[in-house]
Amino acid sequence: MPRPLPIALIGQKFMGRAHSNAWGQAPRFHDLPVEPSLAVACGRDAAELEAFAARWGWARSTTDWRELADDPEVALVDIGTPNHLHAEPAIAMLEAGKHVACEKPLAGTLDDARAMRDAARRSRGKTFVWFNYRRCPAVALAWQLLRAGRLGRIHHVRASYLQDWGGAGTPMSWRFRKKTAGSGAHGDLNAHAVDLARFLLGEEVVEVHGAVSRTFIKERVVPGTRTKARSDVDDAVLFTASFRSGAVASFEATRLATGNQNANRIEINGELGSLRWDFEEMNLLHFYDATDPRQTAGWRRIMATAGDAHPYASYWPDAHLLGYEHTFVSQAADICRVLGGRKPLVPLPDFADAWETQRVLEAAMRSARERSAVKIAEVT
Amino acid sequence: MPRPLPIALIGQKFMGRAHSNAWGQAPRFHDLPVEPSLAVACGRDAAELEAFAARWGWARSTTDWRELADDPEVALVDIGTPNHLHAEPAIAMLEAGKHVACEKPLAGTLDDARAMRDAARRSRGKTFVWFNYRRCPAVALAWQLLRAGRLGRIHHVRASYLQDWGGAGTPMSWRFRKKTAGSGAHGDLNAHAVDLARFLLGEEVVEVHGAVSRTFIKERVVPGTRTKARSDVDDAVLFTASFRSGAVASFEATRLATGNQNANRIEINGELGSLRWDFEEMNLLHFYDATDPRQTAGWRRIMATAGDAHPYASYWPDAHLLGYEHTFVSQAADICRVLGGRKPLVPLPDFADAWETQRVLEAAMRSARERSAVKIAEVT
Amino acid sequence: MPRPLPIALIGQKFMGRAHSNAWGQAPRFHDLPVEPSLAVACGRDAAELEAFAARWGWARSTTDWRELADDPEVALVDIGTPNHLHAEPAIAMLEAGKHVACEKPLAGTLDDARAMRDAARRSRGKTFVWFNYRRCPAVALAWQLLRAGRLGRIHHVRASYLQDWGGAGTPMSWRFRKKTAGSGAHGDLNAHAVDLARFLLGEEVVEVHGAVSRTFIKERVVPGTRTKARSDVDDAVLFTASFRSGAVASFEATRLATGNQNANRIEINGELGSLRWDFEEMNLLHFYDATDPRQTAGWRRIMATAGDAHPYASYWPDAHLLGYEHTFVSQAADICRVLGGRKPLVPLPDFADAWETQRVLEAAMRSARERSAVKIAEVT
Amino acid sequence: MPRPLPIALIGQKFMGRAHSNAWGQAPRFHDLPVEPSLAVACGRDAAELEAFAARWGWARSTTDWRELADDPEVALVDIGTPNHLHAEPAIAMLEAGKHVACEKPLAGTLDDARAMRDAARRSRGKTFVWFNYRRCPAVALAWQLLRAGRLGRIHHVRASYLQDWGGAGTPMSWRFRKKTAGSGAHGDLNAHAVDLARFLLGEEVVEVHGAVSRTFIKERVVPGTRTKARSDVDDAVLFTASFRSGAVASFEATRLATGNQNANRIEINGELGSLRWDFEEMNLLHFYDATDPRQTAGWRRIMATAGDAHPYASYWPDAHLLGYEHTFVSQAADICRVLGGRKPLVPLPDFADAWETQRVLEAAMRSARERSAVKIAEVT
Repeated sequence: MPRPLPIALIGQKFMGRAHSNAWGQAPRFHDLPVEPSLAVACGRDAAELEAFAARWGWARSTTDWRELADDPEVALVDIGTPNHLHAEPAIAMLEAGKHVACEKPLAGTLDDARAMRDAARRSRGKTFVWFNYRRCPAVALAWQLLRAGRLGRIHHVRASYLQDWGGAGTPMSWRFRKKTAGSGAHGDLNAHAVDLARFLLGEEVVEVHGAVSRTFIKERVVPGTRTKARSDVDDAVLFTASFRSGAVASFEATRLATGNQNANRIEINGELGSLRWDFEEMNLLHFYDATDPRQTAGWRRIMATAGDAHPYASYWPDAHLLGYEHTFVSQAADICRVLGGRKPLVPLPDFADAWETQRVLEAAMRSARERSAVKIAEVT
Repeated sequence: MPRPLPIALIGQKFMGRAHSNAWGQAPRFHDLPVEPSLAVACGRDAAELEAFAARWGWARSTTDWRELADDPEVALVDIGTPNHLHAEPAIAMLEAGKHVACEKPLAGTLDDARAMRDAARRSRGKTFVWFNYRRCPAVALAWQLLRAGRLGRIHHVRASYLQDWGGAGTPMSWRFRKKTAGSGAHGDLNAHAVDLARFLLGEEVVEVHGAVSRTFIKERVVPGTRTKARSDVDDAVLFTASFRSGAVASFEATRLATGNQNANRIEINGELGSLRWDFEEMNLLHFYDATDPRQTAGWRRIMATAGDAHPYASYWPDAHLLGYEHTFVSQAADICRVLGGRKPLVPLPDFADAWETQRVLEAAMRSARERSAVKIAEVT
Repeated sequence: MPRPLPIALIGQKFMGRAHSNAWGQAPRFHDLPVEPSLAVACGRDAAELEAFAARWGWARSTTDWRELADDPEVALVDIGTPNHLHAEPAIAMLEAGKHVACEKPLAGTLDDARAMRDAARRSRGKTFVWFNYRRCPAVALAWQLLRAGRLGRIHHVRASYLQDWGGAGTPMSWRFRKKTAGSGAHGDLNAHAVDLARFLLGEEVVEVHGAVSRTFIKERVVPGTRTKARSDVDDAVLFTASFRSGAVASFEATRLATGNQNANRIEINGELGSLRWDFEEMNLLHFYDATDPRQTAGWRRIMATAGDAHPYASYWPDAHLLGYEHTFVSQAADICRVLGGRKPLVPLPDFADAWETQRVLEAAMRSARERSAVKIAEVT
Repeated sequence: MPRPLPIALIGQKFMGRAHSNAWGQAPRFHDLPVEPSLAVACGRDAAELEAFAARWGWARSTTDWRELADDPEVALVDIGTPNHLHAEPAIAMLEAGKHVACEKPLAGTLDDARAMRDAARRSRGKTFVWFNYRRCPAVALAWQLLRAGRLGRIHHVRASYLQDWGGAGTPMSWRFRKKTAGSGAHGDLNAHAVDLARFLLGEEVVEVHGAVSRTFIKERVVPGTRTKARSDVDDAVLFTASFRSGAVASFEATRLATGNQNANRIEINGELGSLRWDFEEMNLLHFYDATDPRQTAGWRRIMATAGDAHPYASYWPDAHLLGYEHTFVSQAADICRVLGGRKPLVPLPDFADAWETQRVLEAAMRSARERSAVKIAEVT
């Protein structure tokens, strides 16, 4: 019988639901050394919170996150709040010796991110960041193929995360305010794109060659009113970059790519082969093996759902597709594994790791502002 | 607070897991008039059963399904056993006044199916059959478009369910024995194909024009032994048919379509448009609207995941893909809705409905045997 | 300098254009042992014919095909007329010792086809039938992979040729009259499907298990009038069949598959692998190699355009796509090769070969009429 | 009877073949006001040239391009030579009053390009540049939809041209030498990408935000020797840019994108819709119409081959696919139309137009070199 892992969750919106589901489902589909126990749900709206806690099976709820630090029954604090509300609770919990799992991006500002990284260094608690796409079976398989050298020297990375929900009709929210979100599509989507590229290549970006940030929709209606408020975050950020090994990369994040609802895409070209993935067909990995004879070489559509052959795929039989939520369930399972003394199948991002992604995002912002190339080493 | 719906489950293998998950998840993602309560899990292997019940949250377990009939705390009995074990418990539970949800196909034999249909007619319990694919959002959307007349008169149905796990290396199991399964790919996969076609067209098959059934692998190794046993079910069945309105159809089920792990596919062509769906990309519906101007007419790849526009899609934001298990969760939710007095979004199959599918399957078997066309009216 | 091959063409419509283009282009892209010389164009409308001959470079024209038989300067007669006008000129030319290339299907009726086969047996002239799709690079590559045993024992063939131009708005023409066309979609499209399957498998169909033929649109407007005439050919024919080796097959031809303009498709599943092709993406062959490790097995999208690795692909560099007309150019080139004493890369169909396809089509028609299975051996 | 247009061709390699074929085929498929007459083929290797001229039907040949200027029988000079050999003959012919059609990019250097633009301004001859992809039916259809305002305000352009033939095993050639080619993938492929984006948007690039140019393979074997020579051109160039209207764009050209043989791709996102095209499936245009109801909105796969509805598609019936060479045939036809006093269906690029593309390419090179943003207005 695995020992329980008592968890407190901060945040009861979209990510609160995704995380709650993950903690509930992880032990049903995975054999784990510790058993997640849904101890406390924490949110600001008490009425809403109670229904939320009941629905998702949280034992109790509170509107004051500060009390979690002193709660001896809480081992892991899971933070799913807007970006500007990551640093304070994360640092407090780390100082109290808790483990912390935090939504991405690590923070809305470089200062917050740096402080979080430093708090993690000082704490005996472990940290985790919900870069959930690493645990799509197809993505984890790509990681395995790259680690096995199947692509040889890497020449190209082409990463983009395209959404289209941010048109002029979309009302104001915390996501469109710099103060609460730090940035727009950049921190929301390029964070995933940069994490995915760094994760898959296993090396760091060294330079941003040039970036452009654009706010197409400058004002948005405030919900429940007739007034408009200024949106001061980017709708889209594009940039080119280089990795240490010399591979060149392009990154793009946008909320205005009409027709692309959730196209988190990456393609990697190496001297021996290529890989391509798109979240909109998340169960598939496309692999081109240039060592195949020319007669039969071709992009292989790998249905990465074989439990005996593909990582994070042992939920259902072959090609009985997995969905978005399984990426969180598998990450929750891996967090349990790590806290139970085991190793995850593929690396779990911690605050130090997420800090590296934050530096690249910051370099891109500076490049756009200064109209020049920016070396990552200059971002500290 | 919704009143509880106490459920007993019979079967603890693949379908036992799928159903358990569905009953657990349904109330987390759906607002339901009754709340599923996982009361009893029933299976033959007591040791395995206990772990199963604990993992999935069943309150208690039993190895004797007969006691469920007299258990006043059980309102719905959910049957997920091999095909030859559907009729006896289903009929017993219906006679005891329970509601019954049964895995597909309705039964392994026509006699069993007929008896189940008759028991359903006599009982005050409601019946349900787990033709889960009806509740893929893309499939339910197809149903809506067809009901709205968007395809006009239907000319063609092309349905196939292709798998490839049944090669010579696959060992013996109940699925390869006529006595336990009734048939092979036919009852397993053509059952889905026929149900899907009947559901979408909203009308019945009237004739099977010609069928072929083939057993390519005639012997299989008995697990744990070196001996082989005879596989006496089909590996593949193909047939052509007509619907009442005159539409012509082809059906194909196989476990030997190398490269197709779970390709449950249907295409429907009408005078005004066409629809196409493949479970291997389950979130997408392809729609061709022939009333579009020729300049811009084309197959539309509809990402059927918009909670505000597509049925059974309100789990996560747009294009945050759903998976196989959500089809069961949505069916569990609809069963709760019906038992709570509401209507499902799209029709739920009951025993009478599943009986019609069984007749078509039987007609195909006869056609293959007799080398002639068979009218469905002759199958009673 | 290759010696000239003087050609006479009968027919100046769609196929007249396709063949003219093929004879003109073949020597520009292929090194040939004989040089096609466009000697005579023959058609019924003298005025139209003159413009046609001028445009395509035919040296002279005539409205009387009979004079070609005695013309010592004509070596090959190429027939591109409606189906009921194949037999008479073909037989006359063979009796005159000419080589004959004939459009498919071999004939509109079994009697005509048999007579043509017999005439070919008696003649010293060589015969060819324009089953042009054999020479798509992707199809010829499929043939090579099958001959090399890459699929092992074949279990399944799934062939369909779907078009959608035959709706109620399409006016009357020779194609909708049994007298001139023999059949509708069946002879036009199933002829290609059956030829492709026989060609790729390299074996014969032995039985049609069941067929359905349907005429959805029973009357069509006669062009230039307000009256309607009866369409007495099928709009669609579907059937299931078996090959000698035991492989099961389905065939479908239709002109009412809305949204499918020219979907000539085939999929073949064997124990070691599978192949899939669709003319609507004609340059691609999809190949699944089941001997690949499960981790990286997947359908390979082979861009079959590498001149050094793929047959009939040496027109332009890799992935500089070929089109419909190149299938004719490559067949014209192969006819020149054969008449110059060389071998074609993949088999060229002659009248004896096309006769076998005609038998299968006839068996399907009988099966639909008689509501029973029909063995091919019974069609003589 | 159209009057003849006597043409001289300079260059007998890949582009010599593509252009020869185009001039020969144009009048067979298009009704033209002037009839191309293949008067003179010009090349350096006399022996090879004679065979080339015979094969493609050039009336005579010469190894001295200078004599064409004084040849009163030549009306149009078509230049298909390496990039450093564009300017001299183009300017000489323009000064002699000839019309000039030149391969892309306009030139290998900005100086050459400027001189050519100026010569064109001074001449009474008309100029054309072979940006052939504008005449893919799917691309021309995209242009029509954009001109009709179907995308509304444009936010995003994503253009890339990915090839993979430039690996370490590819020997030295003029394409890898700055002196002869000017640049590598940049001038060869980004030229197409930039032209396509400018053509489709109908507006100019105003700024390059940041670029990276990379030479991965620094030495290549000289054919016929064992020695290696330095490759001093880029293997890949990526950059981000803005259009005048504010749309942001990314461009990428590479010869090392393993698995992508000829992926000339563009996607454009506007507030009302999106378009996507990839040469590797050149007959298809993907169109997302955001004004469709959400229930049925989706990317439409338009088979842009309907002669009555799509530009440059009237070669064969619907979905009887066109290939690479038809883009040249259609451009040759349009050149004939323009020289015969008619209008092309979509704009034909001339030297002034190609000069604008050259400026963007130059700005990208400067940006890569200077590690800063570059305004196009600074490139003169």
